Amino acid sequence: MGSPLLPELEPLAFLLGVWRGTGLGEYPTVERFSYEEQLEFANVGKPYLTYQQRSWVLRDGERLPSHMEFAFWRPRPEGSVEVISAHPNGVAEIEIGNVDGSRVTLHSLRLVTSPSAKEVVRLERDFVVRGDSLVYDVRMEAVQQLLRPHLHAELLRTA
Amino acid sequence: MGSPLLPELEPLAFLLGVWRGTGLGEYPTVERFSYEEQLEFANVGKPYLTYQQRSWVLRDGERLPSHMEFAFWRPRPEGSVEVISAHPNGVAEIEIGNVDGSRVTLHSLRLVTSPSAKEVVRLERDFVVRGDSLVYDVRMEAVQQLLRPHLHAELLRTA
Repeated sequence: MGSPLLPELEPLAFLLGVWRGTGLGEYPTVERFSYEEQLEFANVGKPYLTYQQRSWVLRDGERLPSHMEFAFWRPRPEGSVEVISAHPNGVAEIEIGNVDGSRVTLHSLRLVTSPSAKEVVRLERDFVVRGDSLVYDVRMEAVQQLLRPHLHAELLRTA
Repeated sequence: MGSPLLPELEPLAFLLGVWRGTGLGEYPTVERFSYEEQLEFANVGKPYLTYQQRSWVLRDGERLPSHMEFAFWRPRPEGSVEVISAHPNGVAEIEIGNVDGSRVTLHSLRLVTSPSAKEVVRLERDFVVRGDSLVYDVRMEAVQQLLRPHLHAELLRTA
């Protein structure tokens, strides 16, 4: 959008761009699955980054839309960050965490679900960027399971 | 994205498209302001619509980014709808409401805020579509004020 990056966003600048790659998902209640993903962190000229994620699964040779996620990443003083996110499965949440160099760790602080959503209690996420490579892990506490690994993906910056 | 609209989305189909226009904002704690807005409801081939909103204000002849909002609209049986939304001012929420013809009324059911956010307690929204015209009103309970008018906008479908 051509807006200059505000100084308070500099600690998150390493995330900017469009990232594409593949991931693996698992959880005790579902079969393991692999997915394609596109994830974009964008600067819109405000003191936050937008985060938009989409994933697809292959089934019978067809590429089908799977998950999406929308969020705003708000950097806070001293390397902390607040993430405000909406998930189409009925979860809205505030995550907080820290930025340490090019590593971000986040966990749910306040999470609410819609009346028809499955139970989700907590998410934890790690993002690690090295150059144009981004690796993330998501752990989830949901549907009466303890916190455990849910997603792992490896993406490359494509724009 | 070219995906066919799932049957459960038919009651929300009147919202689909890119809407542009102008709005007026007011609240006891701020000066009245006018804004330009773009709002898009999109079908992504899943049982929800995506909602992406941006607004801009004019200041000293410059068009500056103002608010944004991301959400997922999930239709439920018998004309009800769940909206899962993220706001960059630190608010994440579940709204519920009803679709009656081409009118939607929503209110916050569960709303959480980030540690650095201003207090927001409740939002109520009405959307009314007539052909290619969309009018919405937002009422807000926040920063120790009672629920009262906050936003009014009139948009036209441009795509």
